[in-house]
Amino acid sequence: MTELILHSYFRSSTSTRLRAALNLKGLEARYVAHHLVRDEHRDPAFLAINPQGLLPALELRGAPGGDVALTQSLAIIEWLDETWPDPPLLPADPLGRARVRALSQAIACEVHAVNNLRVLRRLREQFGADDAAVAAWFRHWVAETLAPLERMLRDDPRTGAFCHGDAPGMADLCLYAQVLNNRRFDVNMAPYPTIMRIFDACEAVPEIARAAPANQPDAE
Amino acid sequence: MTELILHSYFRSSTSTRLRAALNLKGLEARYVAHHLVRDEHRDPAFLAINPQGLLPALELRGAPGGDVALTQSLAIIEWLDETWPDPPLLPADPLGRARVRALSQAIACEVHAVNNLRVLRRLREQFGADDAAVAAWFRHWVAETLAPLERMLRDDPRTGAFCHGDAPGMADLCLYAQVLNNRRFDVNMAPYPTIMRIFDACEAVPEIARAAPANQPDAE
Repeated sequence: MTELILHSYFRSSTSTRLRAALNLKGLEARYVAHHLVRDEHRDPAFLAINPQGLLPALELRGAPGGDVALTQSLAIIEWLDETWPDPPLLPADPLGRARVRALSQAIACEVHAVNNLRVLRRLREQFGADDAAVAAWFRHWVAETLAPLERMLRDDPRTGAFCHGDAPGMADLCLYAQVLNNRRFDVNMAPYPTIMRIFDACEAVPEIARAAPANQPDAE
Repeated sequence: MTELILHSYFRSSTSTRLRAALNLKGLEARYVAHHLVRDEHRDPAFLAINPQGLLPALELRGAPGGDVALTQSLAIIEWLDETWPDPPLLPADPLGRARVRALSQAIACEVHAVNNLRVLRRLREQFGADDAAVAAWFRHWVAETLAPLERMLRDDPRTGAFCHGDAPGMADLCLYAQVLNNRRFDVNMAPYPTIMRIFDACEAVPEIARAAPANQPDAE
């Protein structure tokens, strides 16, 4: 029997995406917390699992081919979906899959990747950015992507109660985690009614809401 | 018959990834150049195709379900792989697929996303970064990711002539485009012999080498 071990930090939005995916699949994973702000993800024991030192990581212990660690939240979610197909987190048709992946990557690459903790830290270190400058940077990249994303969701008939149809999928998990993250920087979400409607739909799904930072064992 | 229209910029490394994938699949696409530095990707005609205004985008004209535009290079490459499976750009087994996706996303999210043209521009605008500061930023994120990536490739028996086995796949296309990009900022690649060995293997594949910036119709 393979044991799943989730390496996570309560506030990490990439960890939130993966926690929600595990919950939707009905999978139990042992929770191992790493405090990003205290640099616990730089411990040699964790670097042996994920040399990038990034969260989340999903360890599979006792897997048929030997122990293995999976990294990168979207790659792990796709693996979950291929291994436990029900309920699906990606649609069945290739064009639908391309759309859900593109929406997910728009949030992952264009918003989160430039706004995560280590990038914001680097702005302080290299450019002496203060809290106000860091917040301005964060909000800039949110607006750059959420404005077109709002139109892409609003104008496409494939958008339903969620980003793609009427069941939550991979793009919704990215959207949900990002909107939660935005609250820490007082982002005005009024220009994004479709995104907020989908966020509210996500929050009404118990498996997704349970993945929120406040509900994790390491929450502060 | 569906016509493929590739919206590209010769120097864009995300465009390079996709061009190489199209070449490996033996697909012809009409090339439409958008000059990023001249902000041609902000033209209303292109924003109607991709509201994010990002390259690459792949338009499908005359598709059975109507015209559609695909965005985000990795999502497009996965769609190509699902639609034209030969030669495969992802392995068949889920754990192998998870590894190739994670390697791809490590480059896409942790290196490229923080180092692309619009992020570097923003550093100049918000923090007054000069050429030297921009280059230092670029090299910082390259080193942060390529150092662990080198170990992940070197230490995993699944690495072959390419990132995963002995045929080029999605992760190799990301690696190839990133190493080309690094040349513009004089990145010292000596600490990454495995990555450079794989880069050389990519460059020896005519379909990949043809995707390089210098070989595009809009090359300067």
